[in-house]
Amino acid sequence: MLVQKYKDMLSGKSVIRQLSEFATARGQEIGYENVFDYSLGNPSVAVPKAFTDAMIEMLQTEDTSVLHGYSPSLGITSVREAVAASLERRFGLPYRKEHIFMASGAAGALAHAFRLVTEPGDEVLTFAPFFPEYHPYVDLSGAVLKVVPPDTRTFQINFDVLEEMLTEKVMAVLVNTPNNPSGVVYSAETLKRLADVLTDRSRRYGHEIYLISDEPYREIVFGGTEAPCVSAFYDNTIMCYSFSKSLSLPGERIGYVAVNPRCKDAETMVNMCGQISRGIGHNCPPSIIQLAVAKVLDQTADLSVYETNMNLLYNELTRLGFECVKPGGTFYIFPRALEEDSVAFCQKALKYDLILVPADTFGAPGYFRMAYCIETKKVERSLPALRKFVKEIYGR
Amino acid sequence: MLVQKYKDMLSGKSVIRQLSEFATARGQEIGYENVFDYSLGNPSVAVPKAFTDAMIEMLQTEDTSVLHGYSPSLGITSVREAVAASLERRFGLPYRKEHIFMASGAAGALAHAFRLVTEPGDEVLTFAPFFPEYHPYVDLSGAVLKVVPPDTRTFQINFDVLEEMLTEKVMAVLVNTPNNPSGVVYSAETLKRLADVLTDRSRRYGHEIYLISDEPYREIVFGGTEAPCVSAFYDNTIMCYSFSKSLSLPGERIGYVAVNPRCKDAETMVNMCGQISRGIGHNCPPSIIQLAVAKVLDQTADLSVYETNMNLLYNELTRLGFECVKPGGTFYIFPRALEEDSVAFCQKALKYDLILVPADTFGAPGYFRMAYCIETKKVERSLPALRKFVKEIYGR
Repeated sequence: MLVQKYKDMLSGKSVIRQLSEFATARGQEIGYENVFDYSLGNPSVAVPKAFTDAMIEMLQTEDTSVLHGYSPSLGITSVREAVAASLERRFGLPYRKEHIFMASGAAGALAHAFRLVTEPGDEVLTFAPFFPEYHPYVDLSGAVLKVVPPDTRTFQINFDVLEEMLTEKVMAVLVNTPNNPSGVVYSAETLKRLADVLTDRSRRYGHEIYLISDEPYREIVFGGTEAPCVSAFYDNTIMCYSFSKSLSLPGERIGYVAVNPRCKDAETMVNMCGQISRGIGHNCPPSIIQLAVAKVLDQTADLSVYETNMNLLYNELTRLGFECVKPGGTFYIFPRALEEDSVAFCQKALKYDLILVPADTFGAPGYFRMAYCIETKKVERSLPALRKFVKEIYGR
Repeated sequence: MLVQKYKDMLSGKSVIRQLSEFATARGQEIGYENVFDYSLGNPSVAVPKAFTDAMIEMLQTEDTSVLHGYSPSLGITSVREAVAASLERRFGLPYRKEHIFMASGAAGALAHAFRLVTEPGDEVLTFAPFFPEYHPYVDLSGAVLKVVPPDTRTFQINFDVLEEMLTEKVMAVLVNTPNNPSGVVYSAETLKRLADVLTDRSRRYGHEIYLISDEPYREIVFGGTEAPCVSAFYDNTIMCYSFSKSLSLPGERIGYVAVNPRCKDAETMVNMCGQISRGIGHNCPPSIIQLAVAKVLDQTADLSVYETNMNLLYNELTRLGFECVKPGGTFYIFPRALEEDSVAFCQKALKYDLILVPADTFGAPGYFRMAYCIETKKVERSLPALRKFVKEIYGR
């Protein structure tokens, strides 16, 4: 018999995907260039040439059995060394290869992190607004995701509610900064206070509470914003990184788990990741992609377009009277809808070929997300549509 | 707290890996060319030039956002179509893209297959000798792996014991033909009889029993051997394929699940795979690798060296009096050791720099495996060592 829980999931189609399909269909009618598709968080800028050059050079010169051979289950040793050295250089923590596990993107990294520190029934806390895929990621691992409601004034952490929800059953707290969908970057003050709470509760409950830090947007930070390194604040931090956004490689499934070198069980935890892989069919990310990213670790795609787009949108939205926290990074912005029901709001926007995502599944009803990883010209062309929509429907 | 079951696994180091590490260490002493390392099933022949050319051409000409962008969760549509067309051409079953789910190698494919059809506590049956990784693959999915002991005369299926063990709790039967470690290919007669048993029991128990067919060695079949398509015999077959061996790409993690088009729930099952992925951090195999294998689907690396090596070893082993079923495919051979305790036997062989793997963990104590995916010259140079070992230790 087919397993019911997965069968049931088939009917619950993601809102984002539905909207993205609508955008594609509408594009076939009026030309996709005329659809202002803010639905998908799919990087739009080119992969750095150095990555492509590295791939071609290896393909032209390397022995194929080296290039395409099995990677050790923790990742290729030289790649782990390079990642550790880069992290040490950037963040000043003494990372060594023993702290690095190469994973298939952030999703792969998180799948390992949850299984490292939670038994079935244990709780994982995260903070709204949050990436809706955290639900299947956590829930299907056997743990239970609980969501701390947002502080909508700043989209930093709502500490009062956190302290209530942080019971003995919580084994891990999951943060995502810079944040999808709010675009907000957690401040040093927020991270310090979070670390203090976790340290205090770990002591009180007699067990570690791990901080799982999902950092795919780490490199997309806008001028004037400081993006502190989460691991620097709390020893028991498991960093989950992906190159999807920084190098525009979402399809190549490459990232890593980096356990804080100051975490007392760091090396054991990395070795355990290799065991977890055996159960989930993971078996390390593609060899050639590991080798290629290792050659461009300190580079990124040209991410400046995201800041340009953010400024265009932020200025227009605030001018139109939207309540909106200015993003410090990512390629998302997260304004409050102009009516209580953000689903209805986004539905009405469709008539103006504006594809906006209502934020109910992000844990912040009443808000909506715009993913502005699209061409700046298209953002510019969308502004009159946005003005028209707001004027005609809401009289502003 | 760290999860104990994964921590415990750290102490149970695989015998194959220990032997492979011994071989590497010994290689540093006497030169690796003098170590007759038959431990690892790592393809030794070059990747087809057409694959490398396809990769380079795409890197030189394609838009990077297409080439490295997110793949749909079931795999890139054109790739699924190409795989389906190739399977239909070769095996005459009406495969369409709706039956294909692109996976990260056979390990990834199997991880999805087990989760499709088993709830925690359900049983999966497989046949000794078997690939030892099946244990963590199945057991960590929540199901329970039970092993039908071997028919050591032929290494086909031991049907008498199968019929006893095939209780109502069994939801899936897992076969691997051509087989690691025996090298044996299941005959049409075996597969027909297996299908009859499964059909009969499915009816009797009132639930489907799925046949999961792990086929990474499908393309490595030796002259004179017929390798029947497992799916042609039984409608409820889930084929799990990997390009690791056929294209010598084990590190690139590329394969697929192909659900038999005659299976009544085929399309639903493929869609369910996309849901299972969300829980195990899978998220499709690397985009560029999907696109590249689609261009060389009907090609293989030059696999003839494996047959050459097999004949050299089979002739020498039988000449020396080893009991041994002649392999019909793969790059393994599986003789009976010259003493009851095959661990002791393999231990003694180490003194002759012969790295042989005792078969206890393969479910066939008393036997040993040789993985002859090494240079033919090295196989030839190993024969005097084999003769010397057998003569000095066993007086033959």
